[in-house]
Amino acid sequence: MDSIFLKNITLDGTQVDILIEDGKIAKIRSFAGAQDDRRGEGMTVLDCTGKTAMPGFVNAHTHAAMSLMRGIGEDMALHDWLDHIWGIESHLDRPFVFSATKVAALEMIKTGTTSFNDMYWHSRMSMKATEEIGLRGLFSYTCLDNFDPEVTARQKDECAAMYEMVKDNLGRQRFAVSIHAVYTVSEPMILWATDFARKRGLRIHIHLSETRREVEDCKAAHGGLSPVEYFDSLGLLGPDVIAAHSLWLSEKDVEILGRRGVSCVHNINSNLKLASGYKFLCEELKDAGANVCLGTDGCASSNNLDMLEAMKTTAIVEKAWRDDPTALPLGDLLDMVTVNGGKALGLKTGKIEEGWDADIQIIDTDSTFFLSPGPFLANYIYSAHSDCISSLIAGGRLVMKDRKVKGEKEILSDGWKALETIQEQQ
Amino acid sequence: MDSIFLKNITLDGTQVDILIEDGKIAKIRSFAGAQDDRRGEGMTVLDCTGKTAMPGFVNAHTHAAMSLMRGIGEDMALHDWLDHIWGIESHLDRPFVFSATKVAALEMIKTGTTSFNDMYWHSRMSMKATEEIGLRGLFSYTCLDNFDPEVTARQKDECAAMYEMVKDNLGRQRFAVSIHAVYTVSEPMILWATDFARKRGLRIHIHLSETRREVEDCKAAHGGLSPVEYFDSLGLLGPDVIAAHSLWLSEKDVEILGRRGVSCVHNINSNLKLASGYKFLCEELKDAGANVCLGTDGCASSNNLDMLEAMKTTAIVEKAWRDDPTALPLGDLLDMVTVNGGKALGLKTGKIEEGWDADIQIIDTDSTFFLSPGPFLANYIYSAHSDCISSLIAGGRLVMKDRKVKGEKEILSDGWKALETIQEQQ
Repeated sequence: MDSIFLKNITLDGTQVDILIEDGKIAKIRSFAGAQDDRRGEGMTVLDCTGKTAMPGFVNAHTHAAMSLMRGIGEDMALHDWLDHIWGIESHLDRPFVFSATKVAALEMIKTGTTSFNDMYWHSRMSMKATEEIGLRGLFSYTCLDNFDPEVTARQKDECAAMYEMVKDNLGRQRFAVSIHAVYTVSEPMILWATDFARKRGLRIHIHLSETRREVEDCKAAHGGLSPVEYFDSLGLLGPDVIAAHSLWLSEKDVEILGRRGVSCVHNINSNLKLASGYKFLCEELKDAGANVCLGTDGCASSNNLDMLEAMKTTAIVEKAWRDDPTALPLGDLLDMVTVNGGKALGLKTGKIEEGWDADIQIIDTDSTFFLSPGPFLANYIYSAHSDCISSLIAGGRLVMKDRKVKGEKEILSDGWKALETIQEQQ
Repeated sequence: MDSIFLKNITLDGTQVDILIEDGKIAKIRSFAGAQDDRRGEGMTVLDCTGKTAMPGFVNAHTHAAMSLMRGIGEDMALHDWLDHIWGIESHLDRPFVFSATKVAALEMIKTGTTSFNDMYWHSRMSMKATEEIGLRGLFSYTCLDNFDPEVTARQKDECAAMYEMVKDNLGRQRFAVSIHAVYTVSEPMILWATDFARKRGLRIHIHLSETRREVEDCKAAHGGLSPVEYFDSLGLLGPDVIAAHSLWLSEKDVEILGRRGVSCVHNINSNLKLASGYKFLCEELKDAGANVCLGTDGCASSNNLDMLEAMKTTAIVEKAWRDDPTALPLGDLLDMVTVNGGKALGLKTGKIEEGWDADIQIIDTDSTFFLSPGPFLANYIYSAHSDCISSLIAGGRLVMKDRKVKGEKEILSDGWKALETIQEQQ
């Protein structure tokens, strides 16, 4: 892999040079001036004068291939909206998932995300698309048997077969097991998938307590146990679990999630737009010992994959519902989308320090959004938009330079073709 | 004023040409093809093939010159935050307000706003800056006497003097009278300012029921009257009143605001971030007869002037707190930032139809954000960001072309100088 030398970039208010080798941040030193300009075989030098370095974002829960389903069924009640989504999903094929994931990855690059946690069908196609474009993702086989024993049996075989197929060909990607949710997965499937993942050191990706109704239905079905209590009773919860939403939680739920060290992923835009709820117990979960992260969810509900947008909304909604403008300060918010996300996915990402993965945003501050007496972080999160991200390094690869991504025209036109194919089938 | 010819632009799904003359949309016709390319003396022709026309936004409540105060006092309780703001405001001078308004106007242009309603000190400087850059604003003398009869007397004189000074030199700008709020303005001042404005046909700009405490304090001070009831008892409320926030309202308040035809301006980001509240009674106000609009408030609280960002947050928060994903549909949301805002300010803006003011955004849809089977409006509001606005026409003037604004480098450097001057004085 090529080396990259970031010349004269601002890091925490100081001018530095950053040397990137083998996907890692190899060296950070005080800016040494132009005369000491490193150039060599396979070395890319970027003059970053006036620009600021930030860690790349970790999107801890999404359905990347839903990028081509944004904007359908807007302003509809949940059941009408689901009809629209399922109408398209019934025609999904592997080429669609490949193209749609490419589109999603392109959008993630433009908005500063360097790694993500995905849940979708035909996930080998998503892995392939992500590997090609240069990001890193955690992909999974999704267990969703709808309580049908025949499907349970088939999905066990498929999951094991997919694992065998990918385990030696992961490239920079990772493999996990998804257990969709309490309302879609049978107990035998949950137990089997948990055991399968644990024995192989794979992470487990679940939806958890997304809506009030999910919690009520679970209690009715499982002798008063909440989804958290029910999953915990089956031995599922642990530090290898990434629990999307974790929104409707009792005090006892929070205690359990904390004690088990679960990664809880807030998805603010999706939760607001579908009217699922918004009172995420960020502070309580953190205090209890859980690892709080942020995600965008899929584009069908959040409409985009922009983590910077999600950060601002998360922070200001948290302040509002708690009636406390000091809630969720900037530093904690940044942790959610960097180191905490990295911990969830098992990546050493989220800090710009020697020895860490080279996931770096290069920020252009030459706009009104940064013209302020306030700190950089406030302007970046509360004022600017993702178009301030001029270049992006993901796992040591320069995936965007001056807002240009290699092959982006082709990705867009392939995306349009994939959409047409689906629409013809409907 | 020069004419502008927008060639082959998409309007409501159809390809058209739009001719702009004397600040108005003079002619819209079906796209006639390249051979019929109008060019003449003083005619600017823009090839808009593949681009979509949208009305420019009306920001119905802001404090433009606070653009240079963003990012200070973040994550602080309200009283600490106010100390920071007042620390800077105590050193404000006319050159600062001029530079800061230029910065604000530049940001409004980049984010698609073509007219705005302002409240700030040294407002003649804001008018001048806005006139120079080509936008249109409603500026005011701000009555804020803090219940001190000496200040009341002085402000009456100042207000009348400012009106005399500006009334024949307005250019494209408009003049109003601001009555800051129930908790800062005395009854004699309110009565005088209302009478002064009404006799001259000027609009009245107020803060109204922004916080729960404001309402409680008002009731305690005025025999149980809410701010709405109190202002109404003084004869203030009417269709010429623009009431920022209008957030903490009783059923009776809503009825009064509706009956008086008041323009009520929601400021979602500011309200969320300062933890003022978020349950804006959009539907109820509209049903009662009020004119509901959207604003950003000043950058010190909202951190930017981006109306597109404010629109998405408004819609998804409204859906969430009402527990209804069908609340505030896209068309109603668009009305708030276009025709309703125009009505509030007294401008014939917000529709792209012949005879209306030429306030037009030219949208570049060549990105992942518009790659969808859904309608343009959904992608524009829920998925895209303001950098999709490639060019902007404000009152018939081309104020941005291909994301470039004339003099923007100078505006930024003047802004930095203004900030330094203030910081030296502190």
